[in-house]
Amino acid sequence: MNILIKNTTIVTMDGEKIIQNGNILIEGNIIKKVFVGEVDESHTKYIDTIIDGSGLCSLPGFINCHTHVPMTLLRGEGEGKSLMKWLKESIWPKEEQFKKEHIKVGASLAFIEMIKSGSTTFNDMYLHEREIIESAIENKIRGFFGYTIMGEKWREHFKKSKELHNLINSLQYDKMKNYTVAPHSPYLLSEEALNEIAIYAKEKGSIIHTHIAETKDECNIIKERYGTTPVKFLKRCNVFESKVVAAHSIYLDDEDMDIYKNNGVSAIYNPQSNMKLASGVAKIKELKEKNINVCLGTDGTSSNNNLNMFEEMETGAMLQKLHYEDPAIFNGYEMLQMATVNGAKALGIEKLGKICEGYIADVVMLNMKEAEMMPDKNLLSNLVFSANGGEVLHVIINGEIIMKNKEMIYIDEEKILFESNKLAKNLI
Amino acid sequence: MNILIKNTTIVTMDGEKIIQNGNILIEGNIIKKVFVGEVDESHTKYIDTIIDGSGLCSLPGFINCHTHVPMTLLRGEGEGKSLMKWLKESIWPKEEQFKKEHIKVGASLAFIEMIKSGSTTFNDMYLHEREIIESAIENKIRGFFGYTIMGEKWREHFKKSKELHNLINSLQYDKMKNYTVAPHSPYLLSEEALNEIAIYAKEKGSIIHTHIAETKDECNIIKERYGTTPVKFLKRCNVFESKVVAAHSIYLDDEDMDIYKNNGVSAIYNPQSNMKLASGVAKIKELKEKNINVCLGTDGTSSNNNLNMFEEMETGAMLQKLHYEDPAIFNGYEMLQMATVNGAKALGIEKLGKICEGYIADVVMLNMKEAEMMPDKNLLSNLVFSANGGEVLHVIINGEIIMKNKEMIYIDEEKILFESNKLAKNLI
Repeated sequence: MNILIKNTTIVTMDGEKIIQNGNILIEGNIIKKVFVGEVDESHTKYIDTIIDGSGLCSLPGFINCHTHVPMTLLRGEGEGKSLMKWLKESIWPKEEQFKKEHIKVGASLAFIEMIKSGSTTFNDMYLHEREIIESAIENKIRGFFGYTIMGEKWREHFKKSKELHNLINSLQYDKMKNYTVAPHSPYLLSEEALNEIAIYAKEKGSIIHTHIAETKDECNIIKERYGTTPVKFLKRCNVFESKVVAAHSIYLDDEDMDIYKNNGVSAIYNPQSNMKLASGVAKIKELKEKNINVCLGTDGTSSNNNLNMFEEMETGAMLQKLHYEDPAIFNGYEMLQMATVNGAKALGIEKLGKICEGYIADVVMLNMKEAEMMPDKNLLSNLVFSANGGEVLHVIINGEIIMKNKEMIYIDEEKILFESNKLAKNLI
Repeated sequence: MNILIKNTTIVTMDGEKIIQNGNILIEGNIIKKVFVGEVDESHTKYIDTIIDGSGLCSLPGFINCHTHVPMTLLRGEGEGKSLMKWLKESIWPKEEQFKKEHIKVGASLAFIEMIKSGSTTFNDMYLHEREIIESAIENKIRGFFGYTIMGEKWREHFKKSKELHNLINSLQYDKMKNYTVAPHSPYLLSEEALNEIAIYAKEKGSIIHTHIAETKDECNIIKERYGTTPVKFLKRCNVFESKVVAAHSIYLDDEDMDIYKNNGVSAIYNPQSNMKLASGVAKIKELKEKNINVCLGTDGTSSNNNLNMFEEMETGAMLQKLHYEDPAIFNGYEMLQMATVNGAKALGIEKLGKICEGYIADVVMLNMKEAEMMPDKNLLSNLVFSANGGEVLHVIINGEIIMKNKEMIYIDEEKILFESNKLAKNLI
């Protein structure tokens, strides 16, 4: 299918360049041309759909670099309990009851929420990834999938991770062919396990998606066991010989940051989860000063409690301003970078995250004619500090219109909402 | 006009009580009856409008206790500059160009944004309050108005404040008859000025709306000038002999808190502004432990950059969790209290902020059938940590339907958006 978006404000993310009254020509799944002025006849011949972009702005879809999608079913569960009580009493006993249908429906609920708030790519880490893939295919959202390897059963999980790898290799859908090796964290895996996982990832050229240095407790555990920091311990296990995307990355010392830098590790900033769980403040300013790639993620809904990247950008910027006592740092453009191009870089898709010729056509279109978006003199700032996500009208993923005027085209939203509520309420 | 809301989920804010499949009968501007079950014929006779509340939840409208409404025209202005540079280069030179039309249109833009995100009452502090009142009357939103008294021209401002008082006393609209005396802050007024203002407020029984202890700089200035804290200095000026609502209230020591407590001062928590301007973290947990009333405010859009109380509740809770390193504090209900009943208490309107018989009919209705609101097992948590404001469908203020299905009934929204953009862009 070929699409022409006409007369739209384009946030290219090719630098801070904004194009007024621009047109975007999409051929198949690729942005063929971005231009201003008349549409010539040679284009109109083969266009299937024209979208009127007047009053709307178009930007690259957000890339949610760290989440656990089926946890939507546990939204608001055990709220107000302390961390371990919450996990032991509320989350784990309910997760144990998850069957295939919970995973599929919970994932689908997550995808609807993500698409409606402008995300077009997610990087997941959970169990039962087969059902998550099925659901992602139905919802037509771009996915990265990792089977969590952790605890005493790590060999069993690792086997499932390899099976997932084979499954993903066999898929016909290019946008779903994104496997990650997903060791949970340095504190829930032995040195032996991490070494084996590192070897596999290196051999296969796979991305490693993991949690690193999320809490003080984790640092204390690693210090006690190995006399070092989580990052230095993982280095010893050769984990950084592969491309690593590291969720949280809060407690890093200067040497840890250098390890990130020298090994091309991407840090995933999860500000809302870090605040809500009282984990701490990631030193994003320092990471950026060292030219470490920083992207953004929502984490799962149980610790957020939403999957809205607009909130993540806004909270993320404000938290850094507060932490470094400097209102002048982290502007709209920097936060949009984290949510788009930096995410693409972290996940190794070169031609994603910009609205430029030759890039993959993941485009989100927002209504600028909302009170919170006025005046529109500083659009990049408005997108980060004023928008709430309710402005998203149309979503295109891989050249396909997935949402039009807030209506999901391929998914029966009402049915998923109803089923997710029913399934969640039947958990004991 | 009499309204019946049928078959709705009611967040009463009368404790944590939620009524399923409830009905709300509104007679004039008062909630006449809140009940479950059949609607008897004696009611239906005099009902003018029935609203189907199925799939929706109804809650008391939010009370935004601290804002500067016409500043919407400066949204995103000078973003990324340090505080003084931002004020001197971007904000003050533009504010000087404000004429009556800027105030009216800017205020109207703010009211549309507030109503669409569920606020039904605001407490303003600015200049040109006459035009803000006119705009509030047109938009039918409940307002509190204070003319900012500050600097060397304080006598002139004080005179304007008294004129405002007379104007408000002459109004026919009860919901607009809310005058506050608004001395800017302890650091922008002399001891003499504050003493005179305190006498006036006490004599007239007026609420004092002011900024207190917002920044470290302010504390240093007051320490240098008077050898004490902002709160103790204000006490010396007899400011607390009237009912005070104190924006920010970040840098308070134990004695300051006791002064708040003993004098019934309400602290206004402005988390997003405090983070964005890197002002600091208000000690809300400690204030609440001392039984000090805490309400919520967005501050102006130039330092936020929106007027959305849903964001304020969520960020406010997360910031406290992080600050006190305790994920178990500040749940959904506590944040909703700050946004509703506590605001009513701060502003001295006894029968506001709950959906209960005899209360003023300010009711907001949200669509619960959105992905981020599912599952709906923990509604109070969802409202605070998952909703973004885009769920608000209908708004009733003072017994009148102001917004229906996201459409403003009395205001030409498109015209205000267009004019505000034009006016903002013409500022030099």
